[in-house]
Amino acid sequence: MNYRMMGKFISRILMLEGIFMLPALCISLFRQERMAIQGFAYSIALILVLSLLFYFYGRKAERKFYAKEGMVCVSASWILLSLLGCLPFYISKEIPRFVDALFETVSGFTTTGATILPAVEDLSRGILYWRSFSHWIGGMGVLVLLLAITSVGGNENGFTMHLLRAESAGPDVGKLVPKMKTTASILYWIYIGLTVLNLVFLLLGGMPLFDAVCTALGTAGTGGFGIKNDGLAGYSPYIQNVTTIFMLLFGVNFGCFYLVLMKRVKDVLRDEELRMYLGICAVATVLIVWDLRGVYGSLGETIRHAAFQVSSIITTTGYATADFNLWPNFSKAILMTLLVLGGCAGSTAGGFKLSRAMLLAKNARRSVRRVVRPQKVQAVRCNGRAVSEKVLENINAYLAVYVLVIVISFLLISLDGFSYATSFTSVLTCVNNVGPGLEMVGPAGNFSQFSVFSKLILTLDMLVGRLEIFPMLILFSRSTWRRK
Amino acid sequence: MNYRMMGKFISRILMLEGIFMLPALCISLFRQERMAIQGFAYSIALILVLSLLFYFYGRKAERKFYAKEGMVCVSASWILLSLLGCLPFYISKEIPRFVDALFETVSGFTTTGATILPAVEDLSRGILYWRSFSHWIGGMGVLVLLLAITSVGGNENGFTMHLLRAESAGPDVGKLVPKMKTTASILYWIYIGLTVLNLVFLLLGGMPLFDAVCTALGTAGTGGFGIKNDGLAGYSPYIQNVTTIFMLLFGVNFGCFYLVLMKRVKDVLRDEELRMYLGICAVATVLIVWDLRGVYGSLGETIRHAAFQVSSIITTTGYATADFNLWPNFSKAILMTLLVLGGCAGSTAGGFKLSRAMLLAKNARRSVRRVVRPQKVQAVRCNGRAVSEKVLENINAYLAVYVLVIVISFLLISLDGFSYATSFTSVLTCVNNVGPGLEMVGPAGNFSQFSVFSKLILTLDMLVGRLEIFPMLILFSRSTWRRK
Repeated sequence: MNYRMMGKFISRILMLEGIFMLPALCISLFRQERMAIQGFAYSIALILVLSLLFYFYGRKAERKFYAKEGMVCVSASWILLSLLGCLPFYISKEIPRFVDALFETVSGFTTTGATILPAVEDLSRGILYWRSFSHWIGGMGVLVLLLAITSVGGNENGFTMHLLRAESAGPDVGKLVPKMKTTASILYWIYIGLTVLNLVFLLLGGMPLFDAVCTALGTAGTGGFGIKNDGLAGYSPYIQNVTTIFMLLFGVNFGCFYLVLMKRVKDVLRDEELRMYLGICAVATVLIVWDLRGVYGSLGETIRHAAFQVSSIITTTGYATADFNLWPNFSKAILMTLLVLGGCAGSTAGGFKLSRAMLLAKNARRSVRRVVRPQKVQAVRCNGRAVSEKVLENINAYLAVYVLVIVISFLLISLDGFSYATSFTSVLTCVNNVGPGLEMVGPAGNFSQFSVFSKLILTLDMLVGRLEIFPMLILFSRSTWRRK
Repeated sequence: MNYRMMGKFISRILMLEGIFMLPALCISLFRQERMAIQGFAYSIALILVLSLLFYFYGRKAERKFYAKEGMVCVSASWILLSLLGCLPFYISKEIPRFVDALFETVSGFTTTGATILPAVEDLSRGILYWRSFSHWIGGMGVLVLLLAITSVGGNENGFTMHLLRAESAGPDVGKLVPKMKTTASILYWIYIGLTVLNLVFLLLGGMPLFDAVCTALGTAGTGGFGIKNDGLAGYSPYIQNVTTIFMLLFGVNFGCFYLVLMKRVKDVLRDEELRMYLGICAVATVLIVWDLRGVYGSLGETIRHAAFQVSSIITTTGYATADFNLWPNFSKAILMTLLVLGGCAGSTAGGFKLSRAMLLAKNARRSVRRVVRPQKVQAVRCNGRAVSEKVLENINAYLAVYVLVIVISFLLISLDGFSYATSFTSVLTCVNNVGPGLEMVGPAGNFSQFSVFSKLILTLDMLVGRLEIFPMLILFSRSTWRRK
């Protein structure tokens, strides 16, 4: 293990976290929120001290860096970020229990949006901002942290990237642009640009500045923390529709935006995953609108709510304009299916990812065809190109671990004795980084009633889901820590 | 397509079905159940005529027979058996709607045990017997039908067997014994022997003959149709315990029994799948006993109910001595997990199969280790031997299709608007050929309230699960029926 290199990397990450806390501190200072100011100030001081310690430890690091170390590094730094990121909540006493503060922070960084807070409007402005900003940091982390690691290490990390980038079916910016640093900055700028655009559209609709900033940050990270107790239900239809569209945009492979910038719109329109994504959203919306007939006053209102909830769930954002827990069961079933599917690979969305599901289905079809015509060599194709067997094998292994994680977590959560739907969908929504589930954890509910043990399991599930499982498994695998 | 060969095969199968209906007819004659006599007589006549027609059509068949045709043949004959097997129910008007009669029959042949009957005690004796006997036929079918096909065809069907026999991890009778016909008859005799032994033990406990025969038939096939409205709750603890033990036995790989007969007990004790099976049953029982503290009068009673329900669900039988739908949620969660796992490969049990789950977990662990030590060649081992990559690939593909089938069925069933737990567990219990689920389809409930569409979907799910998915997919695949 190249511990010094890991130290260097973690030092950088912590420094960034400290800097990212400054705007929240400023807001608290401006609003004279005494407890929150304390929370942020102490946290920033501690984070910067730790960052310096790691810096001095990692100064003389060798450049050699293997996939294993990359994975351990990603997992460890995500956990460390969360442990330190929850301090403002805890020190300010706005979330008095540490396990709750940790849950909330991990939910933020993993862009889940599941909350243990029954009434979010009681929080101070600084804390609310930090909560929403953690989504944005998390979304950026998903896009770039992994690239950053690869740029630190050598070529050995091909496998890391491969595993972590959801076997991207669509345009891969990393392949389109030769240099890693350029790729990273392109992704940064697309991400920042879209966030600002979202903000502008929200402000144009008359949304208060603070609300608009928090909503845009949560949308960009496909997070889902709201700053109102009733989510987005209280805002105007215009604001809801804008959010629907931007949620959808942040669930698209960022490679597509890059291609649009390069004026290669045709390639984008031909992308199979994107077509599937839009197709599923359209079909799901139509079916839910049909199922909701008679529930809302007008067809327009029904379409607005259906489209909003569909984009919110498939992109794993988790905002709500309506309590879909009260909708008919068919609509709920559709939403729970979208919740598992997730958005496109190469986006900030979580979930299983559409490209994986698509390749699994194609692979299954090939298995059938192989029996019918055993002599014919058949490749699984995506966007016209053959997908390598190695990728298919990885996706299959991914599905297996994904199912195992869900089943085991479900069993453990059930110890709390909540209903089948509550226990099962709370695991699903955490592993897939969505936010709301059904019944007790529905859009109008929250996670506060779970035991400490269950909260820790769900916290771990959010991390496991966000890092696409393998890095966390490697962190906790005995063989990683065994000396040769 | 070698249609004539398929005709020959189907002729044999139908002839068997006709013969198998005779005992039920005799019971009805003896009890003078006029409508049931009519039902059986007309059905047997029709089946024999059809069998003759197929016989003449298939008389001059060529011997050449490919995997594809084997699969189509299995699927088609299972569907045909069900369509004809449901006639006694329908003609006798004891189940007046055809779709219900079909559901009940498929549930019988696939050894599921899910019922659309709210009050089973209203049925005549002959019909009750036929219902339970269909489980036994189904169990035998699972064991032998596939072998039979392979003996009819040539060597090309290695793949068929392979896919269909759940990638058996344990002792495989087909490998232990050189000739296919010998294998088949060994399996027959073990199956018949165990059934008779079960019957004797039940009779020794003072169970009425008819009840004992039906219970033994249902246990052997891991089916689950009861002949009392309250399942096995009304029988003595002795009878319940005997059933617990025999359910467990029928969930064991039949290769183990063969090894015991060959006095190779050591090999049996070393079998990984068997150890895992017994271990899971023990742990699950202990956990449920702990969770049920205070629910029943004594510890002994609690253990009896817990052990019974655990064996009933893991072996996918579906008998009940207690309505576990009223148990605490942790116990329910354990049962629903066992329901998905299923019994050992090479037994009459359905479900995903333990050996598959075990190999998936081992394969996942290897994926993690590969990242940690990429240079080391690592094989997945089972019972000391390396498992081929082809087998692992098949299991992975199986999982993918399995999940897809469940998700799609769940969506379609949800159209009926029943609760999440009802819709989801009704699909799980049908695909895994168990019988009861949660809430509306719990042990005290039934499937009568589903729409015709949902019943057909669930009927298909039972068939898909029993035939381990691929044969049904091949039957309905376009490429199977396309001319070259």
